[in-house]
Amino acid sequence: MTVAAQRAILESDYVIGNTTYLDQIKPLLPGKKVITSSMGEEIARARHALELTSDGNTVSIISGGDAGVYGMAGIVLEIAEKESADVDSDAIPQIHVIPGVTAANATASILGSPITGDSAAISLSDLLTPWDDIERRIAGAAASDFVIILYNPKSRNRNTNFARCIEIVRRYKSGSVPVGLVKNAYRDGERAVVTTLERVLDYDDFVDMHTTAIIGNSESRTWGDRIITPRGYHRKYDY
Amino acid sequence: MTVAAQRAILESDYVIGNTTYLDQIKPLLPGKKVITSSMGEEIARARHALELTSDGNTVSIISGGDAGVYGMAGIVLEIAEKESADVDSDAIPQIHVIPGVTAANATASILGSPITGDSAAISLSDLLTPWDDIERRIAGAAASDFVIILYNPKSRNRNTNFARCIEIVRRYKSGSVPVGLVKNAYRDGERAVVTTLERVLDYDDFVDMHTTAIIGNSESRTWGDRIITPRGYHRKYDY
Repeated sequence: MTVAAQRAILESDYVIGNTTYLDQIKPLLPGKKVITSSMGEEIARARHALELTSDGNTVSIISGGDAGVYGMAGIVLEIAEKESADVDSDAIPQIHVIPGVTAANATASILGSPITGDSAAISLSDLLTPWDDIERRIAGAAASDFVIILYNPKSRNRNTNFARCIEIVRRYKSGSVPVGLVKNAYRDGERAVVTTLERVLDYDDFVDMHTTAIIGNSESRTWGDRIITPRGYHRKYDY
Repeated sequence: MTVAAQRAILESDYVIGNTTYLDQIKPLLPGKKVITSSMGEEIARARHALELTSDGNTVSIISGGDAGVYGMAGIVLEIAEKESADVDSDAIPQIHVIPGVTAANATASILGSPITGDSAAISLSDLLTPWDDIERRIAGAAASDFVIILYNPKSRNRNTNFARCIEIVRRYKSGSVPVGLVKNAYRDGERAVVTTLERVLDYDDFVDMHTTAIIGNSESRTWGDRIITPRGYHRKYDY
């Protein structure tokens, strides 16, 4: 968590989030009005937060990782945009998005340095994005030799998306490409696996909704239990 | 900056970095042995840091943003890997990569929520990566409708890379797609521009080595001086 995010929470009257995230910031909550929301209720949560600001309250909406990456920032702005159509511009609440450490960076730091170079982040959740669009992005990223970061590789109702994704990536990347899986990064129960593209489906049961996967590019290699994607210094320097 | 990064610096005997980054963490440096390095000396810096640990010192190597994204983590691990070939495994220093807020997330937060969905990060610096590889990734990311984040869009010696990149993206994305440019994010002299793909080259002079650019996907839109890329709630909910 950043110092700026801590400060924002401490300066808030209300803190809104789902239980998982509120549990992780408990030490910051004494004296706050806390509103617990559930997964799937993002629209109601955003609307409620905006309503509370109209009485002059400062409200923090908590996302895991970075609020701007598959998080709450987008839907809060969408709701504010919609509601602002009917009101004076000075009635639109001030909205600040505070950047955070997204799962890509948290996961990468545990694995070594797998995203040193160009990377593509793709969510495998087809709840809000058509699966065809997701497949097209997987193929595009794999064909262009991006390091690929997979968010939401699985969920309760979408158990085969991860295997389907790996199958597509295999059409473009060698089976020896390193793959890292990190579950519960920087949280209780953190676990990491480093394997290869041809073996990763042996760990299909390990992968769950709290896992982020990183698939290397053609230059990525392993060193012990770490993945290194070289930045390219070897092309210019002798070391 | 994260609380964990602050703590790591405070627990270090040595702090190594280039002047730009050391200036930003001055309040944390009293009592530390500080070693200033220059841009282009990353390999020497990594080697020096590892040498210092062999005497039992704790050393922090500072990167801007996230050390794992176009930062120092990769080269430090590469040098450690190389040197470890000749020594006992217990002589290899412990290396912790501490994740941070990379320019993509910092920039996005200033622009609104442009990377709510799938995104691809590409550095336009061809100092360490062949330009052909960069072009292939630009085309691949644009053709697959990724939000595109451009790191290092320009430098002193590579002034035309940004314009060449935009030209390639234009083959795949509509001219009305929003583009955000942020210079010196969260630093002195911060400035942001929100424009479109067809107009962004009017701001070619604005773009420099301290600028990060974000190009939207086919659903991105502007709301005032913000860019919103919808997560996809509109496909499932009425709001």
